[in-house]
Amino acid sequence: MNAARSIPSELIELLGNRLTRDAAIREEHGSDESSHTSHPPDAVAFPESNEEVAEIVKICARHATPIVPFGKGSAVEGGVVAIHGGVCVDLGRMNRILSINHEDLDAYVQAGVTQFQLNEHLAETNLFFSVDPGGEATLGGMASTRASGTNTVRYGAMRENVLRLTVVLADGRIIRTSSRARKSSAGYDLTRLFVGAEGTLGIITEVTVRLYRRPDAISAAICPFNSIGDAVRTVIETIQSGIPIARVELLDEVSIDAVNRYSGLNYAATPTLFFEFQGSPTGVAEQSAFVEKIAHSNGGLAFQWATDEADRKRLWYARHQAYYAMLALRPGARSLTTDVCVPVSRLAECIGETKRELDACSLPSPLLGHVGDGNFHILFLIDPNSSEELAEAERLNRRIVERALAMDGTCTGEHGVGIGKLDFLPIEHGEAFHVMQQIKATLDPQNLMNPGKVLKHSR
Amino acid sequence: MNAARSIPSELIELLGNRLTRDAAIREEHGSDESSHTSHPPDAVAFPESNEEVAEIVKICARHATPIVPFGKGSAVEGGVVAIHGGVCVDLGRMNRILSINHEDLDAYVQAGVTQFQLNEHLAETNLFFSVDPGGEATLGGMASTRASGTNTVRYGAMRENVLRLTVVLADGRIIRTSSRARKSSAGYDLTRLFVGAEGTLGIITEVTVRLYRRPDAISAAICPFNSIGDAVRTVIETIQSGIPIARVELLDEVSIDAVNRYSGLNYAATPTLFFEFQGSPTGVAEQSAFVEKIAHSNGGLAFQWATDEADRKRLWYARHQAYYAMLALRPGARSLTTDVCVPVSRLAECIGETKRELDACSLPSPLLGHVGDGNFHILFLIDPNSSEELAEAERLNRRIVERALAMDGTCTGEHGVGIGKLDFLPIEHGEAFHVMQQIKATLDPQNLMNPGKVLKHSR
Repeated sequence: MNAARSIPSELIELLGNRLTRDAAIREEHGSDESSHTSHPPDAVAFPESNEEVAEIVKICARHATPIVPFGKGSAVEGGVVAIHGGVCVDLGRMNRILSINHEDLDAYVQAGVTQFQLNEHLAETNLFFSVDPGGEATLGGMASTRASGTNTVRYGAMRENVLRLTVVLADGRIIRTSSRARKSSAGYDLTRLFVGAEGTLGIITEVTVRLYRRPDAISAAICPFNSIGDAVRTVIETIQSGIPIARVELLDEVSIDAVNRYSGLNYAATPTLFFEFQGSPTGVAEQSAFVEKIAHSNGGLAFQWATDEADRKRLWYARHQAYYAMLALRPGARSLTTDVCVPVSRLAECIGETKRELDACSLPSPLLGHVGDGNFHILFLIDPNSSEELAEAERLNRRIVERALAMDGTCTGEHGVGIGKLDFLPIEHGEAFHVMQQIKATLDPQNLMNPGKVLKHSR
Repeated sequence: MNAARSIPSELIELLGNRLTRDAAIREEHGSDESSHTSHPPDAVAFPESNEEVAEIVKICARHATPIVPFGKGSAVEGGVVAIHGGVCVDLGRMNRILSINHEDLDAYVQAGVTQFQLNEHLAETNLFFSVDPGGEATLGGMASTRASGTNTVRYGAMRENVLRLTVVLADGRIIRTSSRARKSSAGYDLTRLFVGAEGTLGIITEVTVRLYRRPDAISAAICPFNSIGDAVRTVIETIQSGIPIARVELLDEVSIDAVNRYSGLNYAATPTLFFEFQGSPTGVAEQSAFVEKIAHSNGGLAFQWATDEADRKRLWYARHQAYYAMLALRPGARSLTTDVCVPVSRLAECIGETKRELDACSLPSPLLGHVGDGNFHILFLIDPNSSEELAEAERLNRRIVERALAMDGTCTGEHGVGIGKLDFLPIEHGEAFHVMQQIKATLDPQNLMNPGKVLKHSR
């Protein structure tokens, strides 16, 4: 535990007991779900309004105090680690759903609202919010990391689903990034500049997102394959066929084994696709029959249907628990998680080469992915006391990212850069990386907004 | 015709006869399809590569010469008018289709490729490019104005369909804005910063766009209504029902009358919706039956089907000719075109109030719109010699925009700001307008990239 440095007394005057220097709370806010080394902030603030966030930022700006925004701490690349200390701004008390606009199919919420909370609130309507990063996350955090998840292949990522933002800038100005119109050609797209900026350009305090009508019918299935190549070809052909598949997830044999053990299931321990189809009853029947045929022609072993809601929920619950199932493969281990994304045409090759390397290493390293987007994840389970295992996982991670970049892919499909992918950003973007630095320097000249994240040399 | 000012001699050395100061060619490049006052550039350059564009920009930067990028000149807010002179960079010779990636459903093209050219190239495949702004436009121009069109309600605008860009910055650097992965959380979203920037932050020289699989079945219909309110309610209920309608276009009674006269048709001269449904044969049948029911419950008078391809093409050809049909309502007139976009929930009210004002004015002013997005257009047909009529059209335009802004809409849904909407941008964006100015000043400190467009005080 680092000793907390002094913090501006105006913050205490502003927030009273909603500013804390309690060691346990600071520690909780110094890390996310990753194994990146924790650094607690010097204090944690719990603002309740845009205006309070703006006051906090203004005070910090006067004292050159770093600011780290915090949602649920459920990310995995160390984006909330307070590597330069400062004040953590926890948006947890800004968790009001401000309006649901049924006719416009949108929801306007404070940044601390989680996707579970929003969907629970919507349960009595016929609408839902689509972006599904797995664990519980705030919409502000999801916007900040440009999150996506299992049904991005159909409904898009946060990039497509955020309609507008309220943002507190580094000098305390509060802006709205756009009108509430569905489309606009009026000036620069500030919404998407802040989506994915991981709090380095400002603090997102309110989010307006698209909603969708719940489909009339849903069906789900899993299908095992003899090889990952067969599974990936099935996905490519499904996407190419224009079928609006709602979800298509790949679990490799290691992941399936983990899920079986953790959720008491007995799926065949072989590469497996999880499917979900949504639409009208006849549409769903049509889609699933078509995909079953594609799977069969690629050596798919047998569709196992989850037709009623309970079965379906069980199936997707197992998928959503995969992260914890994987962790349980090696009790006491810490995990190093990585995610990359490549053009779908390169996916089979990328996963194939990656699997050969994983098979040759001694670490348990399950692979799973949102393969309809070309995105996959690997979890390395390492002995927390072994620097050799950490070095091995880091070496493999670097190989995976370099391979993805060589295939014109990206170093992170949905986790964000945080501190974990800092080294790769200049390699991925080349000269464009400097444009990002220019924008950062303009909007945050003191470099106080989540310093040291996303852009390597920004402090 | 303004006398051309001197231009840097290095440009002539670089481009030879691909740099012209010919008065007729300069004049052609000094205006778009709008009635904004023409200003020819001092010279027109026809580069053939990214590197040549970069050299042009570097030379102009050394001599503080303004640069105006030019695609087809088919926009309507004066974005290409060379109000400060300088060099027009015509991308027309950069019209090569660089690659079609069937497995990834994307196309990589030079910025001078038009959407017609791309779709013709794709005619032998089962793929198509969706964004459809009506007239012929280059993909670079469409990206620059964040264009959309009739099927945006289903497939999205350029914002959603551009995957990455090659951009020449104001200092001649050439950047790629992202990898070719379908999604990424790796740093700031530069792609969407340049989409919609209208050439004020750099020149787009290459564009990678999404493609979609051509649907197995398409059907189209029109349905007349007694009132615009009934038509708009039909659209809202259709969108809310989750039906993936491909197109839904409103023409008011003035527009329908114009289309009838121009295309030799005899549709009832009453507010009319044009529909298109796409999907599997059963999906299309399901969708269209459902929408027919919605229309009927809102007073829709009768669906008139265009089932075979020839009928369908005739129907949409009539819709796509609407602009010229409207112009023909008053031979010899000039037109002032405007477009706004509001949340769909406010659309009936917004169009209703607008129509009352239009009915009270003496100018022919047909209204039509991409109403599924909340977007509509009005064309004012004015006597080119009447300053009173121009003033009246401008007054009405201002009223329409102010009404849209008051309803949390935008001053332009798809035409762009150019010079026509300059005054409204600060009103629409408030403090966020200054963030746009900051970004402009950072990426174009000399203010040479399409100066005087988008941001009012940028020269």
